[in-house]
Amino acid sequence: MKAVTLRADWKPREGYVLGRRDVEGRRTYLGSQIWHSPKVEVVEKDVPKIGPTEVLIEVKACGICGSDVHMAQTDEEGYMLYPGLTALPVTLGHEFAGVVVEAGELAFNKRTNRPFEVGEPVCAEEMLWCGSCQPCADGYPNHCERLEEIGFTCDGGFAQYLKIDAKYCWSLEPLRDVYSEDDIFLAGSLVEPTCVAYNAVIERGGGIRPGDNVVIIGGGPIGLAAVAILKRAGAACVILSEPSASRARLGLSLGGHPHNQSSEGDGLGASFGDY
Amino acid sequence: MKAVTLRADWKPREGYVLGRRDVEGRRTYLGSQIWHSPKVEVVEKDVPKIGPTEVLIEVKACGICGSDVHMAQTDEEGYMLYPGLTALPVTLGHEFAGVVVEAGELAFNKRTNRPFEVGEPVCAEEMLWCGSCQPCADGYPNHCERLEEIGFTCDGGFAQYLKIDAKYCWSLEPLRDVYSEDDIFLAGSLVEPTCVAYNAVIERGGGIRPGDNVVIIGGGPIGLAAVAILKRAGAACVILSEPSASRARLGLSLGGHPHNQSSEGDGLGASFGDY
Amino acid sequence: MKAVTLRADWKPREGYVLGRRDVEGRRTYLGSQIWHSPKVEVVEKDVPKIGPTEVLIEVKACGICGSDVHMAQTDEEGYMLYPGLTALPVTLGHEFAGVVVEAGELAFNKRTNRPFEVGEPVCAEEMLWCGSCQPCADGYPNHCERLEEIGFTCDGGFAQYLKIDAKYCWSLEPLRDVYSEDDIFLAGSLVEPTCVAYNAVIERGGGIRPGDNVVIIGGGPIGLAAVAILKRAGAACVILSEPSASRARLGLSLGGHPHNQSSEGDGLGASFGDY
Amino acid sequence: MKAVTLRADWKPREGYVLGRRDVEGRRTYLGSQIWHSPKVEVVEKDVPKIGPTEVLIEVKACGICGSDVHMAQTDEEGYMLYPGLTALPVTLGHEFAGVVVEAGELAFNKRTNRPFEVGEPVCAEEMLWCGSCQPCADGYPNHCERLEEIGFTCDGGFAQYLKIDAKYCWSLEPLRDVYSEDDIFLAGSLVEPTCVAYNAVIERGGGIRPGDNVVIIGGGPIGLAAVAILKRAGAACVILSEPSASRARLGLSLGGHPHNQSSEGDGLGASFGDY
Repeated sequence: MKAVTLRADWKPREGYVLGRRDVEGRRTYLGSQIWHSPKVEVVEKDVPKIGPTEVLIEVKACGICGSDVHMAQTDEEGYMLYPGLTALPVTLGHEFAGVVVEAGELAFNKRTNRPFEVGEPVCAEEMLWCGSCQPCADGYPNHCERLEEIGFTCDGGFAQYLKIDAKYCWSLEPLRDVYSEDDIFLAGSLVEPTCVAYNAVIERGGGIRPGDNVVIIGGGPIGLAAVAILKRAGAACVILSEPSASRARLGLSLGGHPHNQSSEGDGLGASFGDY
Repeated sequence: MKAVTLRADWKPREGYVLGRRDVEGRRTYLGSQIWHSPKVEVVEKDVPKIGPTEVLIEVKACGICGSDVHMAQTDEEGYMLYPGLTALPVTLGHEFAGVVVEAGELAFNKRTNRPFEVGEPVCAEEMLWCGSCQPCADGYPNHCERLEEIGFTCDGGFAQYLKIDAKYCWSLEPLRDVYSEDDIFLAGSLVEPTCVAYNAVIERGGGIRPGDNVVIIGGGPIGLAAVAILKRAGAACVILSEPSASRARLGLSLGGHPHNQSSEGDGLGASFGDY
Repeated sequence: MKAVTLRADWKPREGYVLGRRDVEGRRTYLGSQIWHSPKVEVVEKDVPKIGPTEVLIEVKACGICGSDVHMAQTDEEGYMLYPGLTALPVTLGHEFAGVVVEAGELAFNKRTNRPFEVGEPVCAEEMLWCGSCQPCADGYPNHCERLEEIGFTCDGGFAQYLKIDAKYCWSLEPLRDVYSEDDIFLAGSLVEPTCVAYNAVIERGGGIRPGDNVVIIGGGPIGLAAVAILKRAGAACVILSEPSASRARLGLSLGGHPHNQSSEGDGLGASFGDY
Repeated sequence: MKAVTLRADWKPREGYVLGRRDVEGRRTYLGSQIWHSPKVEVVEKDVPKIGPTEVLIEVKACGICGSDVHMAQTDEEGYMLYPGLTALPVTLGHEFAGVVVEAGELAFNKRTNRPFEVGEPVCAEEMLWCGSCQPCADGYPNHCERLEEIGFTCDGGFAQYLKIDAKYCWSLEPLRDVYSEDDIFLAGSLVEPTCVAYNAVIERGGGIRPGDNVVIIGGGPIGLAAVAILKRAGAACVILSEPSASRARLGLSLGGHPHNQSSEGDGLGASFGDY
């Protein structure tokens, strides 16, 4: 099968001391300190073989994250821009959706509590948490001590197939009520970035009460997802600050507040000297 | 003006000892222990005169609460069914909306932060909290040590006019975007019971995260309001348990979940022996 | 080694239909519907052999839970009183602490993020959650779809040794600052019941703000733990309602409020007629 | 009586446009834009006369806030450093405790729910909120639309007596259990700054779960109060970052964590290259 992979040269910056979890020549927690001359290539790879708790997914859609771009970009000294956990070479792509084409006998589907059946539309978490370290036990799997990341340290969705442990998969079957066949996968590929926003504004930020007003600074994909989530959470008025007209329009279509409201009075947005 | 009032006989049950806040012949915290032979009457009353922080409201709509009914009903010994704070005689009605027809110079409108103007459509809180006792300071105005209740201890909305301190009033002006002139007042008369549900499920109950599922037992006015509030708060699925077909239909129209879903699987509603 | 085990006869009550997760003759989710004539016995068992992610623990202390007692008791028809998940025969005991005497190479200690070393004092969770089903993903491991329970469905702490996956173990090493060698294990055996109370009042109940007052109904082990937890969480006054003098004294020593306070005034505990 | 007052010249900076709530020559929301050449003076004033809901307090202790200092300091152009709401001249001092020496008939004591009695030890809120505007209704009295501030816009505690509405007073009587007569007032004068920290870390910050770890940046009075509050709220370990040795010692005495702990392992504080 074809796969879009990233490789780079292992060339720690001068003075950089490897950390305990860096693996010489192969993996680092601080990509921008190590990787030089990154190259994106289309290569031929074998279809992965699955274990008993894994599924093989045929990819139907895969978004391009800012991190994907930053892994391919360099600073003026030729070092990778992306600063985080990376093990190269790797197949890129972590915002994917697809169809289960093969499943291990212990690869359970959370939706049915039975082993995955071939044909199930799914998306997946990007962070592969161990579930047994202190941060995982504390409810912070994204701080996992033995974190792997799909598309960063193991092969991702820019390929015809990828494999992943079933516990990271989420069925898209419930979307059939609202989306057509193809749109299910487009929607599914947006689940991962939308969850970044959900985690920020609901889990970590503590959410809102229905009727609260919200201001969001920046209408990139995460900010736009936050508009939709907070409107769905009952926000009376979601104000999006975004200079790009096309992104601002997307914000409006997701429930953002049109700003041709009168700004008179003592309310939001009163400027200096007008309190 | 005409007013629908309630009067009753002061006749404490045998053995009942007056509490510190009961006022002989006039007011009690335990209506069903004191009031006998309640009677609802239409009487002629003077239009109330307002003080500097009060508004005079012309009533446009007023709901009938279960409590209104219980104040008119008796047990087999002739005592009022309603068990709570009451000072009789009183004009009934606390789920009202109307128009400000006169306003004191210090009667501020929260919407504008200026004194109320004649013509403002408003509804009002039912509980008249002092704002200076311990429970009020703790954020529980409904536990106020010097609580008065409109339609229970001071004249309410079953009349052409009533007066109330401006701090308990809430403008209905923002509803003009979504409701026609008359519907504003119908919607406004539903604010008080809807707030009972909001307080229960959001303030006291702690709310939900968008995507949570909810079960509501009973589709009376408060339960139906809870359906709408929790759907608005982002509930994935609001299940209403309600035997009356007409109330169940109202629940559906407010966002409740149709129950012709398959009940297969291990999910919600699995019965004994089928876990 | 010696072990205190429970066995019983598989004898479903008349009309009882096995559920999907019941296993004929061996395991049920509803113990009191199935198990007849339970017997506690001291038997000779082999020391368990561990897998790569497991530890072998030498038991130093093990509490007797109400559930242990209920598993040995019967109703008038001879059925086990305990109503829950059980797979018999089993070695009882789930409130234990002990010392790691052998550890698999992948049996990580959350405290050090390295494999367990022999000699580490530990206690363990009672619920063995899969970490991959829907309830586990939702943060409710105690609702796990594939739950096992130590001392209920797999061998527990009423024995010289037991084995358990390292991910359920918690080091008692931090207790050395405050406890002597032996007391560490007594304290460690109280971790499990104390966590029941912590989960109830902090996780599920939502906790308190420092300065709040708290009433706890019943000073059994869980109620007493709740007294200590809520006092530690900053409660101004923890009122324990407990008729047994010895338990009430324990409550006092854990931070409960002495009740020889004057009950005058309008405060807590005012009785009917004195509001 | 003697009083420490602040006066200054009304001299708006060039280009400054008065806001709607600025009052020419007397009051501004932006002190540092208006007030020039501030002077602290000891003057003779009349003992204040109280209204029916007010108390007269004999001051026993009054702290000096950073804001008091900033009101007396100027920038290089001679403008007051303090940037906030101010109405001059005013008697300074808002961190006070004292004894009620006279009380209006409607000046209720929250502790007893009866009018204040002479002799009651009290402290008071600094912010005089109206209780009827939108922010007050929303539970943010410190955002009150008609806010007054004691020691900033009305006479404060650097005097023998001050008057204040009873609803802002809090009895210190409960402190008698733990403090001697004089210490009650010292403790009472710390209530206001401690509440700033409580509001920050508990109300706005959302509090912690018992057992959480906390880092506090800066051990000034508010930071030190936060140490004590969070330790009381059950923090396992409160780490205070504070360069001053005397303040760091105070932090330790309030429950801060001694830092001679080994920093080995993967825990808190691991530095770059050692993750």
